[in-house]
Amino acid sequence: MNPLHRRYVHGHSDRESERLYYQASKLAELLHHDTCYSPGSRVLEAACGVGAQTVILARNSPGAEFVSVDISPESLATAKDRVFQEGIRNVAFRRADIYDLPFGPETFDHVFVCFLLEHLADPLLALNNLKGILRANGTLTVIEGDHGSALFYPDSRDAHRVIDCLVQLQRQAGGNALIGRELWHLMTDAGFMDVTVSPRQVYADCSRPDSVEGVKHIFITMIEEVRKEAISRGMVDKETWEKGISDLYRTTEQGGTFCYTFFKAVGRKEG
Amino acid sequence: MNPLHRRYVHGHSDRESERLYYQASKLAELLHHDTCYSPGSRVLEAACGVGAQTVILARNSPGAEFVSVDISPESLATAKDRVFQEGIRNVAFRRADIYDLPFGPETFDHVFVCFLLEHLADPLLALNNLKGILRANGTLTVIEGDHGSALFYPDSRDAHRVIDCLVQLQRQAGGNALIGRELWHLMTDAGFMDVTVSPRQVYADCSRPDSVEGVKHIFITMIEEVRKEAISRGMVDKETWEKGISDLYRTTEQGGTFCYTFFKAVGRKEG
Repeated sequence: MNPLHRRYVHGHSDRESERLYYQASKLAELLHHDTCYSPGSRVLEAACGVGAQTVILARNSPGAEFVSVDISPESLATAKDRVFQEGIRNVAFRRADIYDLPFGPETFDHVFVCFLLEHLADPLLALNNLKGILRANGTLTVIEGDHGSALFYPDSRDAHRVIDCLVQLQRQAGGNALIGRELWHLMTDAGFMDVTVSPRQVYADCSRPDSVEGVKHIFITMIEEVRKEAISRGMVDKETWEKGISDLYRTTEQGGTFCYTFFKAVGRKEG
Repeated sequence: MNPLHRRYVHGHSDRESERLYYQASKLAELLHHDTCYSPGSRVLEAACGVGAQTVILARNSPGAEFVSVDISPESLATAKDRVFQEGIRNVAFRRADIYDLPFGPETFDHVFVCFLLEHLADPLLALNNLKGILRANGTLTVIEGDHGSALFYPDSRDAHRVIDCLVQLQRQAGGNALIGRELWHLMTDAGFMDVTVSPRQVYADCSRPDSVEGVKHIFITMIEEVRKEAISRGMVDKETWEKGISDLYRTTEQGGTFCYTFFKAVGRKEG
Protein backbone atom coordinates (compact mmCIF):
# COMPACT_ATOMS: atom_id res chain seq x y z
CA MET A 1 0.00 0.00 0.00
CA ASN A 2 1.21 3.48 -0.83
CA PRO A 3 2.68 4.88 2.41
CA LEU A 4 0.78 8.09 1.71
CA HIS A 5 -2.47 6.22 2.31
CA ARG A 6 -3.52 5.97 5.88
CA ARG A 7 -6.46 4.54 7.69
CA TYR A 8 -9.65 6.62 7.45
CA VAL A 9 -9.79 7.99 10.98
CA HIS A 10 -13.60 8.02 11.19
CA GLY A 11 -13.91 4.29 10.35
CA HIS A 12 -16.33 2.64 7.90
CA SER A 13 -19.32 1.75 10.07
CA ASP A 14 -22.94 2.08 8.95
CA ARG A 15 -23.29 4.75 11.61
CA GLU A 16 -20.46 6.67 9.92
CA SER A 17 -22.14 6.35 6.49
CA GLU A 18 -25.40 7.64 7.96
CA ARG A 19 -23.52 10.50 9.60
CA LEU A 20 -21.96 11.41 6.24
CA TYR A 21 -25.32 11.36 4.39
CA TYR A 22 -26.94 13.42 7.14
CA GLN A 23 -24.03 15.88 7.11
CA ALA A 24 -24.19 16.29 3.33
CA SER A 25 -27.95 16.93 3.31
CA LYS A 26 -27.82 19.36 6.27
CA LEU A 27 -24.92 21.32 4.85
CA ALA A 28 -25.92 21.16 1.19
CA GLU A 29 -27.16 24.73 1.00
CA LEU A 30 -24.32 26.23 3.04
CA LEU A 31 -21.50 24.41 1.27
CA HIS A 32 -22.75 23.61 -2.22
CA HIS A 33 -25.31 26.23 -3.30
CA ASP A 34 -22.71 28.12 -5.32
CA THR A 35 -21.22 25.10 -7.10
CA CYS A 36 -22.94 24.63 -10.45
CA TYR A 37 -21.25 23.29 -13.59
CA SER A 38 -22.47 24.14 -17.07
CA PRO A 39 -24.16 21.49 -19.25
CA GLY A 40 -21.73 19.26 -21.09
CA SER A 41 -18.79 19.94 -18.79
CA ARG A 42 -16.77 16.97 -17.53
CA VAL A 43 -16.28 17.05 -13.77
CA LEU A 44 -14.14 14.79 -11.60
CA GLU A 45 -15.30 14.27 -8.04
CA ALA A 46 -12.14 13.09 -6.31
CA ALA A 47 -12.73 10.78 -3.33
CA CYS A 48 -16.50 10.49 -3.42
CA GLY A 49 -16.55 8.10 -0.45
CA VAL A 50 -20.06 6.70 0.07
CA GLY A 51 -21.49 9.29 -2.33
CA ALA A 52 -22.72 11.73 0.29
CA GLN A 53 -21.78 14.82 -1.76
CA THR A 54 -22.22 13.11 -5.15
CA VAL A 55 -26.02 13.23 -4.99
CA ILE A 56 -26.00 16.97 -4.23
CA LEU A 57 -23.33 17.79 -6.81
CA ALA A 58 -25.03 15.86 -9.60
CA ARG A 59 -28.47 17.36 -8.81
CA ASN A 60 -27.06 20.92 -8.80
CA SER A 61 -25.55 20.40 -12.27
CA PRO A 62 -27.91 18.03 -14.09
CA GLY A 63 -26.33 18.73 -17.50
CA ALA A 64 -22.74 18.05 -16.42
CA GLU A 65 -21.10 14.63 -16.64
CA PHE A 66 -19.47 13.48 -13.44
CA VAL A 67 -16.80 10.90 -12.88
CA SER A 68 -16.68 10.06 -9.17
CA VAL A 69 -13.67 8.15 -7.93
CA ASP A 70 -12.60 6.66 -4.64
CA ILE A 71 -9.81 4.36 -3.50
CA SER A 72 -12.15 2.10 -1.49
CA PRO A 73 -14.16 -0.44 -3.55
CA GLU A 74 -16.61 -0.81 -0.64
CA SER A 75 -17.31 2.92 -0.43
CA LEU A 76 -17.62 3.06 -4.21
CA ALA A 77 -20.19 0.24 -4.26
CA THR A 78 -22.22 2.03 -1.59
CA ALA A 79 -21.97 5.31 -3.51
CA LYS A 80 -23.15 3.63 -6.75
CA ASP A 81 -26.21 2.14 -5.02
CA ARG A 82 -27.06 5.40 -3.35
CA VAL A 83 -26.81 7.48 -6.51
CA PHE A 84 -28.79 4.90 -8.52
CA GLN A 85 -31.53 4.79 -5.86
CA GLU A 86 -31.79 8.58 -6.03
CA GLY A 87 -32.49 8.30 -9.76
CA ILE A 88 -29.33 10.15 -10.77
CA ARG A 89 -27.88 9.15 -14.15
CA ASN A 90 -25.11 11.68 -14.87
CA VAL A 91 -22.44 10.05 -12.71
CA ALA A 92 -19.94 7.32 -13.67
CA PHE A 93 -17.95 5.61 -10.92
CA ARG A 94 -14.40 4.37 -11.06
CA ARG A 95 -11.89 3.11 -8.56
CA ALA A 96 -8.85 5.40 -8.47
CA ASP A 97 -5.98 6.45 -6.28
CA ILE A 98 -5.61 10.21 -5.82
CA TYR A 99 -1.82 9.77 -5.96
CA ASP A 100 -1.92 7.76 -9.20
CA LEU A 101 -4.90 8.93 -11.23
CA PRO A 102 -5.89 6.80 -14.26
CA PHE A 103 -6.63 9.81 -16.45
CA GLY A 104 -4.61 11.59 -19.09
CA PRO A 105 -3.59 15.24 -18.85
CA GLU A 106 -6.36 17.81 -19.22
CA THR A 107 -9.17 15.24 -19.15
CA PHE A 108 -11.54 17.31 -17.01
CA ASP A 109 -13.09 20.77 -17.17
CA HIS A 110 -13.48 20.92 -13.39
CA VAL A 111 -12.46 19.02 -10.30
CA PHE A 112 -14.37 18.90 -7.02
CA VAL A 113 -12.93 17.72 -3.70
CA CYS A 114 -14.76 17.64 -0.36
CA PHE A 115 -13.41 16.45 3.01
CA LEU A 116 -10.47 14.69 1.37
CA LEU A 117 -7.32 16.76 1.93
CA GLU A 118 -7.75 16.56 5.72
CA HIS A 119 -7.04 12.80 5.48
CA LEU A 120 -4.00 12.96 3.20
CA ALA A 121 -0.34 12.86 4.20
CA ASP A 122 0.60 14.97 1.18
CA PRO A 123 -2.27 17.26 0.20
CA LEU A 124 0.02 19.36 -1.99
CA LEU A 125 0.96 16.34 -4.11
CA ALA A 126 -2.75 15.49 -4.45
CA LEU A 127 -3.53 19.04 -5.61
CA ASN A 128 -0.69 18.90 -8.12
CA ASN A 129 -2.02 15.59 -9.50
CA LEU A 130 -5.49 17.06 -9.80
CA LYS A 131 -4.08 20.09 -11.61
CA GLY A 132 -2.47 17.73 -14.13
CA ILE A 133 -5.74 16.16 -15.26
CA LEU A 134 -7.51 19.54 -15.40
CA ARG A 135 -7.68 21.49 -18.67
CA ALA A 136 -6.27 25.02 -18.88
CA ASN A 137 -8.65 27.51 -17.22
CA GLY A 138 -10.50 24.64 -15.57
CA THR A 139 -11.46 25.08 -11.91
CA LEU A 140 -10.69 23.17 -8.76
CA THR A 141 -13.13 23.47 -5.83
CA VAL A 142 -12.07 22.25 -2.39
CA ILE A 143 -14.17 22.12 0.79
CA GLU A 144 -12.64 21.23 4.16
CA GLY A 145 -13.51 21.70 7.82
CA ASP A 146 -11.27 22.93 10.64
CA HIS A 147 -11.85 21.48 14.09
CA GLY A 148 -9.96 24.38 15.66
CA SER A 149 -12.92 26.57 14.68
CA ALA A 150 -15.23 24.88 17.20
CA LEU A 151 -16.37 27.63 19.58
CA PHE A 152 -19.04 27.00 22.16
CA TYR A 153 -20.84 28.03 25.32
CA PRO A 154 -20.56 26.91 28.03
CA ASP A 155 -16.85 26.65 27.27
CA SER A 156 -15.17 23.52 28.67
CA ARG A 157 -11.58 22.39 28.87
CA ASP A 158 -12.66 18.74 28.79
CA ALA A 159 -14.74 19.33 25.66
CA HIS A 160 -11.66 20.81 23.97
CA ARG A 161 -9.66 17.79 25.12
CA VAL A 162 -11.98 15.26 23.46
CA ILE A 163 -11.97 17.29 20.24
CA ASP A 164 -8.19 17.34 20.47
CA CYS A 165 -8.18 13.52 20.64
CA LEU A 166 -9.65 13.40 17.13
CA VAL A 167 -7.19 16.05 15.94
CA GLN A 168 -4.26 14.01 17.31
CA LEU A 169 -5.55 10.68 15.95
CA GLN A 170 -6.02 12.22 12.52
CA ARG A 171 -2.49 13.64 12.69
CA GLN A 172 -1.10 10.21 13.70
CA ALA A 173 -2.94 8.74 10.70
CA GLY A 174 -1.10 11.27 8.50
CA GLY A 175 -3.94 13.78 8.16
CA ASN A 176 -4.72 17.27 9.39
CA ALA A 177 -8.06 18.12 11.00
CA LEU A 178 -7.08 21.82 11.07
CA ILE A 179 -6.60 22.11 7.31
CA GLY A 180 -9.47 24.52 6.52
CA ARG A 181 -7.40 27.58 7.42
CA GLU A 182 -4.62 26.35 5.11
CA LEU A 183 -6.59 26.10 1.87
CA TRP A 184 -5.40 29.43 0.52
CA HIS A 185 -1.71 28.61 0.76
CA LEU A 186 -2.17 24.98 -0.37
CA MET A 187 -4.04 25.98 -3.54
CA THR A 188 -1.61 28.82 -4.23
CA ASP A 189 1.46 26.64 -3.57
CA ALA A 190 0.03 24.06 -5.98
CA GLY A 191 0.05 26.79 -8.65
CA PHE A 192 -3.66 27.55 -8.92
CA MET A 193 -4.57 31.09 -10.00
CA ASP A 194 -7.24 33.49 -8.71
CA VAL A 195 -7.72 31.45 -5.55
CA THR A 196 -10.64 32.64 -3.46
CA VAL A 197 -11.48 31.16 -0.07
CA SER A 198 -14.80 31.71 1.66
CA PRO A 199 -15.45 30.51 5.21
CA ARG A 200 -18.90 29.02 5.86
CA GLN A 201 -19.90 29.18 9.47
CA VAL A 202 -22.51 27.06 11.21
CA TYR A 203 -24.08 28.59 14.31
CA ALA A 204 -26.50 26.83 16.65
CA ASP A 205 -28.55 27.95 19.63
CA CYS A 206 -31.94 26.85 21.00
CA SER A 207 -33.82 29.07 18.57
CA ARG A 208 -32.39 27.01 15.68
CA PRO A 209 -33.37 23.40 16.49
CA ASP A 210 -32.28 22.17 13.09
CA SER A 211 -28.74 23.48 13.58
CA VAL A 212 -28.66 22.05 17.09
CA GLU A 213 -29.54 18.61 15.69
CA GLY A 214 -26.75 19.06 13.16
CA VAL A 215 -24.20 19.75 15.91
CA LYS A 216 -25.25 16.57 17.73
CA HIS A 217 -25.48 14.24 14.77
CA ILE A 218 -22.57 15.56 12.73
CA PHE A 219 -19.95 17.01 15.03
CA ILE A 220 -20.43 15.30 18.39
CA THR A 221 -21.15 11.91 16.79
CA MET A 222 -17.90 12.23 14.82
CA ILE A 223 -15.96 12.87 18.03
CA GLU A 224 -17.70 9.98 19.81
CA GLU A 225 -16.55 7.56 17.11
CA VAL A 226 -12.93 7.78 18.29
CA ARG A 227 -13.77 7.13 21.97
CA LYS A 228 -12.35 3.63 22.14
CA GLU A 229 -9.16 4.47 20.30
CA ALA A 230 -8.50 7.68 22.23
CA ILE A 231 -8.91 5.94 25.58
CA SER A 232 -6.99 2.78 24.63
CA ARG A 233 -4.09 4.89 23.39
CA GLY A 234 -4.04 6.72 26.71
CA MET A 235 -4.75 10.13 25.14
CA VAL A 236 -7.42 10.75 27.74
CA ASP A 237 -8.88 8.84 30.69
CA LYS A 238 -12.42 7.49 30.66
CA GLU A 239 -13.72 10.03 33.15
CA THR A 240 -12.37 13.02 31.24
CA TRP A 241 -13.76 11.58 28.01
CA GLU A 242 -17.27 11.19 29.44
CA LYS A 243 -17.12 14.68 30.95
CA GLY A 244 -15.88 16.17 27.65
CA ILE A 245 -18.65 14.53 25.61
CA SER A 246 -21.26 15.49 28.19
CA ASP A 247 -19.99 19.10 28.06
CA LEU A 248 -20.26 19.06 24.26
CA TYR A 249 -23.90 17.93 24.53
CA ARG A 250 -24.47 20.65 27.13
CA THR A 251 -23.72 23.25 24.42
CA THR A 252 -26.78 21.96 22.51
CA GLU A 253 -29.12 22.48 25.46
CA GLN A 254 -30.86 25.56 26.92
CA GLY A 255 -28.67 28.65 26.68
CA GLY A 256 -25.85 26.83 24.90
CA THR A 257 -24.29 27.86 21.60
CA PHE A 258 -21.98 26.13 19.11
CA CYS A 259 -20.07 27.47 16.07
CA TYR A 260 -18.04 25.63 13.45
CA THR A 261 -16.40 26.92 10.28
CA PHE A 262 -15.95 25.14 6.95
CA PHE A 263 -13.71 26.61 4.27
CA LYS A 264 -14.43 26.51 0.54
CA ALA A 265 -11.71 27.37 -1.97
CA VAL A 266 -11.94 27.78 -5.74
CA GLY A 267 -8.92 28.17 -8.00
CA ARG A 268 -8.23 28.15 -11.73
CA LYS A 269 -5.55 26.32 -13.68
CA GLU A 270 -3.38 28.74 -15.61
CA GLY A 271 -4.53 29.20 -19.22
CA MET B 1 -17.31 54.90 41.98
CA ASN B 2 -19.78 52.10 41.39
CA PRO B 3 -17.86 48.84 41.99
CA LEU B 4 -19.41 47.50 38.78
CA HIS B 5 -17.37 50.03 36.81
CA ARG B 6 -13.88 48.96 35.97
CA ARG B 7 -11.04 50.45 34.07
CA TYR B 8 -11.43 50.34 30.24
CA VAL B 9 -8.88 47.65 29.41
CA HIS B 10 -7.88 49.17 26.05
CA GLY B 11 -6.97 52.57 27.57
CA HIS B 12 -7.91 56.03 26.30
CA SER B 13 -4.98 56.98 24.07
CA ASP B 14 -5.32 58.81 20.74
CA ARG B 15 -4.04 55.62 19.12
CA GLU B 16 -6.94 53.74 20.69
CA SER B 17 -9.47 56.33 19.43
CA GLU B 18 -8.02 56.05 15.93
CA ARG B 19 -8.19 52.26 16.17
CA LEU B 20 -11.87 52.49 17.15
CA TYR B 21 -12.75 54.84 14.26
CA TYR B 22 -10.86 52.64 11.82
CA GLN B 23 -12.55 49.52 13.17
CA ALA B 24 -16.00 51.07 12.90
CA SER B 25 -15.50 52.18 9.30
CA LYS B 26 -13.95 48.87 8.20
CA LEU B 27 -16.65 46.78 9.84
CA ALA B 28 -19.59 49.09 9.08
CA GLU B 29 -21.01 46.95 6.29
CA LEU B 30 -20.48 43.60 8.04
CA LEU B 31 -21.87 44.65 11.41
CA HIS B 32 -24.31 47.48 10.74
CA HIS B 33 -25.81 47.07 7.26
CA ASP B 34 -28.98 45.48 8.66
CA THR B 35 -29.57 48.00 11.44
CA CYS B 36 -31.94 50.69 10.21
CA TYR B 37 -34.50 52.48 12.39
CA SER B 38 -37.65 54.03 10.95
CA PRO B 39 -38.08 57.82 10.78
CA GLY B 40 -39.29 59.36 14.00
CA SER B 41 -38.18 56.48 16.21
CA ARG B 42 -36.27 57.30 19.39
CA VAL B 43 -33.09 55.26 19.73
CA LEU B 44 -30.69 55.04 22.66
CA GLU B 45 -27.08 54.25 21.86
CA ALA B 46 -25.75 52.97 25.15
CA ALA B 47 -22.03 53.58 25.71
CA CYS B 48 -21.15 55.46 22.53
CA GLY B 49 -17.51 55.90 23.59
CA VAL B 50 -15.69 58.23 21.18
CA GLY B 51 -18.60 57.99 18.71
CA ALA B 52 -17.05 55.39 16.43
CA GLN B 53 -20.37 53.60 15.79
CA THR B 54 -22.53 56.71 16.28
CA VAL B 55 -21.62 58.18 12.89
CA ILE B 56 -22.54 54.93 11.11
CA LEU B 57 -25.74 54.38 13.08
CA ALA B 58 -27.01 57.92 12.56
CA ARG B 59 -26.21 57.85 8.83
CA ASN B 60 -28.00 54.52 8.35
CA SER B 61 -31.16 55.93 9.97
CA PRO B 62 -31.25 59.63 9.06
CA GLY B 63 -34.88 60.03 10.17
CA ALA B 64 -34.42 58.49 13.62
CA GLU B 65 -33.55 60.53 16.70
CA PHE B 66 -30.59 59.18 18.63
CA VAL B 67 -29.58 59.77 22.21
CA SER B 68 -26.00 58.59 22.67
CA VAL B 69 -24.77 58.18 26.21
CA ASP B 70 -21.46 57.32 27.83
CA ILE B 71 -20.08 57.36 31.35
CA SER B 72 -16.85 59.13 30.33
CA PRO B 73 -17.15 62.92 29.84
CA GLU B 74 -13.89 62.87 27.82
CA SER B 75 -15.15 60.21 25.41
CA LEU B 76 -18.46 62.02 25.12
CA ALA B 77 -16.74 65.31 24.23
CA THR B 78 -14.71 63.53 21.53
CA ALA B 79 -17.85 61.82 20.21
CA LYS B 80 -19.72 65.14 20.03
CA ASP B 81 -16.91 66.79 18.05
CA ARG B 82 -16.65 63.85 15.70
CA VAL B 83 -20.36 63.66 14.97
CA PHE B 84 -20.61 67.43 14.50
CA GLN B 85 -17.62 67.42 12.12
CA GLU B 86 -19.33 64.72 10.08
CA GLY B 87 -22.33 67.00 9.66
CA ILE B 88 -24.69 64.72 11.54
CA ARG B 89 -27.54 66.46 13.35
CA ASN B 90 -29.85 63.68 14.58
CA VAL B 91 -27.84 62.75 17.67
CA ALA B 92 -28.08 64.23 21.18
CA PHE B 93 -25.37 63.37 23.71
CA ARG B 94 -25.76 62.89 27.41
CA ARG B 95 -23.56 61.60 30.20
CA ALA B 96 -25.12 58.50 31.75
CA ASP B 97 -24.26 55.43 33.77
CA ILE B 98 -25.52 52.17 32.27
CA TYR B 99 -26.27 50.95 35.79
CA ASP B 100 -28.27 54.08 36.72
CA LEU B 101 -29.88 55.42 33.57
CA PRO B 102 -31.41 58.91 33.79
CA PHE B 103 -34.46 57.96 31.69
CA GLY B 104 -37.99 57.02 32.68
CA PRO B 105 -39.55 53.65 31.82
CA GLU B 106 -40.35 53.03 28.16
CA THR B 107 -38.59 56.18 26.92
CA PHE B 108 -37.08 54.58 23.81
CA ASP B 109 -38.35 52.65 20.79
CA HIS B 110 -35.00 50.91 20.34
CA VAL B 111 -31.70 50.45 22.09
CA PHE B 112 -28.35 49.79 20.42
CA VAL B 113 -25.24 48.50 22.19
CA CYS B 114 -21.88 47.76 20.59
CA PHE B 115 -18.69 46.48 22.30
CA LEU B 116 -20.03 47.37 25.74
CA LEU B 117 -21.10 44.17 27.51
CA GLU B 118 -17.60 42.70 27.16
CA HIS B 119 -16.36 45.38 29.59
CA LEU B 120 -19.09 45.06 32.23
CA ALA B 121 -18.96 43.10 35.47
CA ASP B 122 -22.73 42.52 35.33
CA PRO B 123 -23.93 42.44 31.71
CA LEU B 124 -27.27 40.91 32.77
CA LEU B 125 -28.04 43.84 35.06
CA ALA B 126 -27.16 46.22 32.23
CA LEU B 127 -29.53 44.39 29.84
CA ASN B 128 -32.29 44.50 32.44
CA ASN B 129 -31.81 48.25 32.88
CA LEU B 130 -31.95 48.74 29.14
CA LYS B 131 -35.14 46.69 28.96
CA GLY B 132 -36.68 49.00 31.53
CA ILE B 133 -36.29 52.15 29.44
CA LEU B 134 -37.48 50.37 26.26
CA ARG B 135 -41.15 50.50 25.21
CA ALA B 136 -43.15 47.29 24.76
CA ASN B 137 -42.21 45.59 21.47
CA GLY B 138 -39.14 47.81 21.18
CA THR B 139 -35.91 46.13 20.10
CA LEU B 140 -32.50 45.76 21.63
CA THR B 141 -29.52 45.18 19.31
CA VAL B 142 -26.21 44.03 20.77
CA ILE B 143 -22.90 43.52 18.94
CA GLU B 144 -19.90 41.93 20.66
CA GLY B 145 -16.68 40.20 19.62
CA ASP B 146 -15.21 36.95 20.95
CA HIS B 147 -11.43 36.66 21.09
CA GLY B 148 -11.71 32.88 21.33
CA SER B 149 -12.85 32.91 17.70
CA ALA B 150 -9.41 34.01 16.44
CA LEU B 151 -8.25 31.24 14.09
CA PHE B 152 -5.14 31.64 12.01
CA TYR B 153 -2.41 30.09 9.89
CA PRO B 154 0.37 29.53 10.63
CA ASP B 155 -0.98 28.54 14.02
CA SER B 156 1.22 29.53 16.98
CA ARG B 157 1.09 28.79 20.67
CA ASP B 158 2.80 32.10 21.46
CA ALA B 159 0.26 34.03 19.41
CA HIS B 160 -2.52 32.38 21.42
CA ARG B 161 -0.66 33.30 24.61
CA VAL B 162 -0.54 37.02 23.81
CA ILE B 163 -4.24 37.00 22.89
CA ASP B 164 -4.89 35.25 26.17
CA CYS B 165 -3.10 38.08 28.01
CA LEU B 166 -5.81 40.48 26.84
CA VAL B 167 -8.53 37.96 27.74
CA GLN B 168 -7.07 37.63 31.26
CA LEU B 169 -6.58 41.38 31.74
CA GLN B 170 -10.14 42.03 30.65
CA ARG B 171 -11.36 39.36 33.09
CA GLN B 172 -9.32 40.92 35.91
CA ALA B 173 -10.91 44.26 35.08
CA GLY B 174 -14.32 42.61 35.50
CA GLY B 175 -15.08 42.04 31.80
CA ASN B 176 -15.33 39.11 29.42
CA ALA B 177 -13.54 39.10 26.06
CA LEU B 178 -15.27 35.81 25.16
CA ILE B 179 -18.80 37.18 25.49
CA GLY B 180 -19.91 36.91 21.84
CA ARG B 181 -20.87 33.25 22.17
CA GLU B 182 -22.97 34.13 25.25
CA LEU B 183 -25.29 36.70 23.69
CA TRP B 184 -28.15 34.29 23.16
CA HIS B 185 -28.38 33.23 26.78
CA LEU B 186 -27.74 36.75 28.12
CA MET B 187 -30.55 38.28 26.06
CA THR B 188 -32.89 35.40 26.85
CA ASP B 189 -32.04 35.45 30.56
CA ALA B 190 -32.75 39.19 30.59
CA GLY B 191 -36.25 38.37 29.35
CA PHE B 192 -36.02 39.48 25.71
CA MET B 193 -38.28 37.66 23.22
CA ASP B 194 -37.58 36.33 19.71
CA VAL B 195 -33.84 36.61 20.22
CA THR B 196 -31.86 35.94 17.06
CA VAL B 197 -28.08 35.82 16.98
CA SER B 198 -26.07 35.99 13.78
CA PRO B 199 -22.31 35.50 13.72
CA ARG B 200 -20.36 37.81 11.39
CA GLN B 201 -17.02 36.38 10.40
CA VAL B 202 -14.04 38.30 9.11
CA TYR B 203 -11.62 36.31 6.94
CA ALA B 204 -8.29 37.58 5.63
CA ASP B 205 -5.70 36.17 3.24
CA CYS B 206 -3.28 37.79 0.76
CA SER B 207 -5.97 38.04 -1.90
CA ARG B 208 -7.94 40.41 0.38
CA PRO B 209 -5.48 43.21 1.23
CA ASP B 210 -8.18 45.31 2.83
CA SER B 211 -9.09 42.57 5.29
CA VAL B 212 -5.39 41.96 5.99
CA GLU B 213 -4.98 45.65 6.90
CA GLY B 214 -8.00 45.31 9.17
CA VAL B 215 -6.43 42.40 11.03
CA LYS B 216 -3.25 44.41 11.60
CA HIS B 217 -4.80 47.73 12.57
CA ILE B 218 -7.79 46.44 14.52
CA PHE B 219 -6.95 43.11 16.09
CA ILE B 220 -3.16 43.02 16.44
CA THR B 221 -2.98 46.70 17.44
CA MET B 222 -5.55 46.01 20.18
CA ILE B 223 -3.43 43.15 21.52
CA GLU B 224 -0.25 45.26 21.36
CA GLU B 225 -1.86 47.92 23.56
CA VAL B 226 -1.69 45.64 26.62
CA ARG B 227 2.00 44.74 26.15
CA LYS B 228 3.33 46.77 29.07
CA GLU B 229 0.66 45.62 31.50
CA ALA B 230 0.85 41.94 30.50
CA ILE B 231 4.62 41.87 30.94
CA SER B 232 4.72 43.94 34.14
CA ARG B 233 2.10 41.66 35.70
CA GLY B 234 4.22 38.64 34.81
CA MET B 235 1.56 37.07 32.58
CA VAL B 236 4.14 36.50 29.91
CA ASP B 237 7.86 37.19 29.50
CA LYS B 238 9.18 39.76 27.06
CA GLU B 239 10.57 37.18 24.65
CA THR B 240 7.32 35.21 24.42
CA TRP B 241 5.43 38.46 23.95
CA GLU B 242 7.59 39.57 21.02
CA LYS B 243 7.40 36.10 19.47
CA GLY B 244 3.60 35.99 19.87
CA ILE B 245 3.12 39.41 18.26
CA SER B 246 5.54 38.54 15.48
CA ASP B 247 3.61 35.30 14.87
CA LEU B 248 0.35 37.25 14.69
CA TYR B 249 1.86 39.55 12.04
CA ARG B 250 3.10 36.45 10.20
CA THR B 251 -0.55 35.43 9.65
CA THR B 252 -1.01 38.64 7.62
CA GLU B 253 1.87 37.83 5.28
CA GLN B 254 2.23 35.51 2.23
CA GLY B 255 0.22 32.30 2.70
CA GLY B 256 -1.19 33.35 6.07
CA THR B 257 -4.86 33.48 7.00
CA PHE B 258 -6.81 35.02 9.88
CA CYS B 259 -10.46 34.62 10.97
CA TYR B 260 -12.43 36.41 13.67
CA THR B 261 -16.11 36.24 14.54
CA PHE B 262 -18.37 39.02 15.85
CA PHE B 263 -21.85 38.20 17.15
CA LYS B 264 -24.92 40.36 16.61
CA ALA B 265 -28.09 39.73 18.63
CA VAL B 266 -31.52 41.32 18.29
CA GLY B 267 -34.33 40.81 20.79
CA ARG B 268 -37.75 42.31 21.45
CA LYS B 269 -39.28 43.50 24.71
CA GLU B 270 -42.48 41.65 25.47
CA GLY B 271 -45.60 43.53 24.32
